[in-house]
Amino acid sequence: MYTATPRTTPTRKSDRMHYDAELVHGVLDTAYHCDVAFVVDGEPRVLPTLHVRVDDVLYLHASSGSRLGLAARESDGVRVAVAVTLIDGLVLARSQFHHSANYRSVVAHGSATLVHDDGSKLAALTALVEKIAAGRSTQTRPPSRKELAETAVLALPLVEVSGRARTGGVIDEPADYDLPYWAGVVPLRLVAGEPEPDAGVSAPMPADLLASAPRGSR
Amino acid sequence: MYTATPRTTPTRKSDRMHYDAELVHGVLDTAYHCDVAFVVDGEPRVLPTLHVRVDDVLYLHASSGSRLGLAARESDGVRVAVAVTLIDGLVLARSQFHHSANYRSVVAHGSATLVHDDGSKLAALTALVEKIAAGRSTQTRPPSRKELAETAVLALPLVEVSGRARTGGVIDEPADYDLPYWAGVVPLRLVAGEPEPDAGVSAPMPADLLASAPRGSR
Repeated sequence: MYTATPRTTPTRKSDRMHYDAELVHGVLDTAYHCDVAFVVDGEPRVLPTLHVRVDDVLYLHASSGSRLGLAARESDGVRVAVAVTLIDGLVLARSQFHHSANYRSVVAHGSATLVHDDGSKLAALTALVEKIAAGRSTQTRPPSRKELAETAVLALPLVEVSGRARTGGVIDEPADYDLPYWAGVVPLRLVAGEPEPDAGVSAPMPADLLASAPRGSR
Repeated sequence: MYTATPRTTPTRKSDRMHYDAELVHGVLDTAYHCDVAFVVDGEPRVLPTLHVRVDDVLYLHASSGSRLGLAARESDGVRVAVAVTLIDGLVLARSQFHHSANYRSVVAHGSATLVHDDGSKLAALTALVEKIAAGRSTQTRPPSRKELAETAVLALPLVEVSGRARTGGVIDEPADYDLPYWAGVVPLRLVAGEPEPDAGVSAPMPADLLASAPRGSR
């Protein structure tokens, strides 16, 4: 369990909030991308990027020359709020007000610092490639020194973290259940299509590739 | 076309950046949710929420009592950076460095202000319900005065906006094309499953519901 802080305590609807590390990890490990919010000259900035969790650290992929990469050069890193969201369904109620979405989301707050050590950086990038497709890190050319220098990896310790989720069916006002409207949930899921080999590839498609396709939902 | 500003000009990889209003609108209209970044006491905050575009205004759904709803009460609104991202595929290159994702993303900067006028608020909420399922606004109970008061709608004029996209296949270093590794793209898409009617619903499922299912991809 993560410990709630003022930043991770909701001003309302606390019933959808949780601090369960296992649920949080599940969302972080399932989603491919996150949105990183940070502040530049007092103004909000946001950058979509790829992430991977290793134990209780969230690694964020960036370019060394990007605004996030540059902001992280400060000795104490860059203050970030990272959001990861999975949309699981559309909730169509009898009342417009109770229309909603089923979702699982995580927000993590903290200081993200650059990973300077090449070994740690390689380990994080390997984890990222393995997350995208299991076994992939051994069936690719590893990064060169130059490529490694062009890539920025930011580490955000998972300490101040909260999850939010809505699951289940429609919830309407008691008086509305007799209304003559259709109501229900439309499930949504991200699925992988047939892999499209690059021109000139003679190697067979790795069997692992299908096994690690999104959420086993093919 | 939107006009580039310092905030919407990349420090690198400008080839993936664009300011094409039609492409931007397509991404905003296709995605169900966005992440809203804002600043509270100098610290970054981020909130996933639902949005709808009407012409050149992006409406954000929030609760009146939420931090975003409260922050927007300032007379000049709340400075936000809104990110909307669609993941279209995983790009598996022969080199780890050139692994990537196909995606379409939009970031919009500006001041989001509360929509105070009940008529405008209703119009934005109707547009949101229609975006989720076409025809739905006439087959539901409209919000009561109390429900309307509990809902905050923020309006962000689409002025300072940029899009980013990666499409197509693998791009490897020239020397890497002979490596004996599989390379290719795994397409990803969000699909709708069979709608699940709520208990006690006797009305037939609206035909429109299927027509407006995500991206016609069922």
